[in-house]
Amino acid sequence: MTTLTDIQNAAEILHGVVHVTPVLTSRTLNQTAGATVFLKCENFQRVGAFKFRGAYHAIATLPPPQRAGPIVTISSGNHAQGVALACQLRGLAAHIVMTKPINPLKRQALTGYHATIHEVEDGEQAERKLRGLQEQLNGVYIHAFNDPRVIAGQGTAMLEFLSAVPDLDAVLAPVGGGGLLSGTCIAGHGISPSIEVYACEPTGALDAIHSVRENRIVPMVAPHTIAEGLRTSLGDVTLPILRNHLAGFFPVEEKEIVEAMRFAFERLKIVVEPSSAVALAPLLRREEALIGKRVGVVITGGNVDPSSFFATIS
Amino acid sequence: MTTLTDIQNAAEILHGVVHVTPVLTSRTLNQTAGATVFLKCENFQRVGAFKFRGAYHAIATLPPPQRAGPIVTISSGNHAQGVALACQLRGLAAHIVMTKPINPLKRQALTGYHATIHEVEDGEQAERKLRGLQEQLNGVYIHAFNDPRVIAGQGTAMLEFLSAVPDLDAVLAPVGGGGLLSGTCIAGHGISPSIEVYACEPTGALDAIHSVRENRIVPMVAPHTIAEGLRTSLGDVTLPILRNHLAGFFPVEEKEIVEAMRFAFERLKIVVEPSSAVALAPLLRREEALIGKRVGVVITGGNVDPSSFFATIS
Repeated sequence: MTTLTDIQNAAEILHGVVHVTPVLTSRTLNQTAGATVFLKCENFQRVGAFKFRGAYHAIATLPPPQRAGPIVTISSGNHAQGVALACQLRGLAAHIVMTKPINPLKRQALTGYHATIHEVEDGEQAERKLRGLQEQLNGVYIHAFNDPRVIAGQGTAMLEFLSAVPDLDAVLAPVGGGGLLSGTCIAGHGISPSIEVYACEPTGALDAIHSVRENRIVPMVAPHTIAEGLRTSLGDVTLPILRNHLAGFFPVEEKEIVEAMRFAFERLKIVVEPSSAVALAPLLRREEALIGKRVGVVITGGNVDPSSFFATIS
Repeated sequence: MTTLTDIQNAAEILHGVVHVTPVLTSRTLNQTAGATVFLKCENFQRVGAFKFRGAYHAIATLPPPQRAGPIVTISSGNHAQGVALACQLRGLAAHIVMTKPINPLKRQALTGYHATIHEVEDGEQAERKLRGLQEQLNGVYIHAFNDPRVIAGQGTAMLEFLSAVPDLDAVLAPVGGGGLLSGTCIAGHGISPSIEVYACEPTGALDAIHSVRENRIVPMVAPHTIAEGLRTSLGDVTLPILRNHLAGFFPVEEKEIVEAMRFAFERLKIVVEPSSAVALAPLLRREEALIGKRVGVVITGGNVDPSSFFATIS
């Protein structure tokens, strides 16, 4: 089980490698939410999302026989970018299994980091390809979230957050596989035991809330949300952490995600991707549990191209 | 003539009223520019632009007979918002003369601050309306830039910038009427005499460069640029300051402005308006005078609605 010490050690490894992202505030947001809100802007992180923290940390702390890679993973999202950049920085080969169609901008970024892309048709093929690469190349698989070293890396964002704003009453983060949220829980409660950690989940992909309530991984079946990064089920590493730590869930409607993206553009002047907007949405609807509190939000990423951003909010 | 002391005094008056805006950095930008770049994000300022600094300071330091207002001004841009919010905070009436057509979002924001909007057909009518309001209401005119108290307020952004990043070699800001740039020059050279201050100006509105070279106000005739805020001529207060302090000018093409807006969205994850993108553009073309230097950029504002943003970059 990941501990505060693991996260503090991860922070030392990530020192000088990750961006210490700024914390933004907005009077307009405070008025709207009826709370004092702090935004930890991981959309300004390298590769545009927090995922670089966990990927780099996991790769940098591989045991000696695996340390030379090559690294393999499945991801069509920010984890792919995080792994690719981490591998480039550490001189390892990166093999990314991605389901078609692949966004041209993502492809360009990955090849810019010298990663090899393996295109597949669906999830089943992806699993087969991954196993093939592990066997043929002796590839080391870095899971996107169900890995204590990834979780420790993601938790460093919360360490920075509490170092910038020590007296948060509550913190909000989106939940997909639960890697960021697990790290946030452990770092948050390690430093400030009374802090309330809330998971924000699209109503079109409500698996984590059921998994935590039923204490078993309720698989995500046919998710229906624009928040691509949150279409994942929890893992056996993340579920018990969330169960032990979460104060509650805020389900978020699709139209609230869109409104939060628009609010971020128009009022905060920052670019947030749909998965990230999910954690801002409860504040915009003036969620009662947060009123009067000092609330932190992890703005997880800003990887959305202008044309799809505009198509989404129009 | 505005001095460093005036700006330091302005900073005391603005303390707790303005946002101390963050300074962002980006490895991608550094690589593109061949320089170490720091972005002072006044797009995160109250009203979404640096203009609030100067407006509030000018209004807060009016001599006693004028101190009760009402305040009158001509502006269809960020100065209008700055004046309106400053008046609301200080309990004064604000009268804003604006040329039609008025952007509905701007109108909504101004009426939200309880400002009164006076719509006119053209610049000549605007001048007449302004004089009328001055006479009928005993209105106090706050000019958008040609006023030492406005310049002192704008200069506080540079004080904050140098306090966050003391060892800048150069700083870039856009030039319209020259208020921000004048304050930037005085604060910059007051603290760090060797710092090079550069003016960035759209090639479709190149009046400031000629004004400074010819040492007379070359009026802006038929400007052709999407950078609305930079379609203004210099004033008799700002011209001598720029002449004394500027290291040089960087003219910027329209397509470079658009590219800089896109780069800010896609890579920096921030929203910048066209007038603000002008000061980022020289770095994106790897301007030779800046290579290898520590370069500050004042990101002046982010007030652009999503639909016109996407129409512009598409």
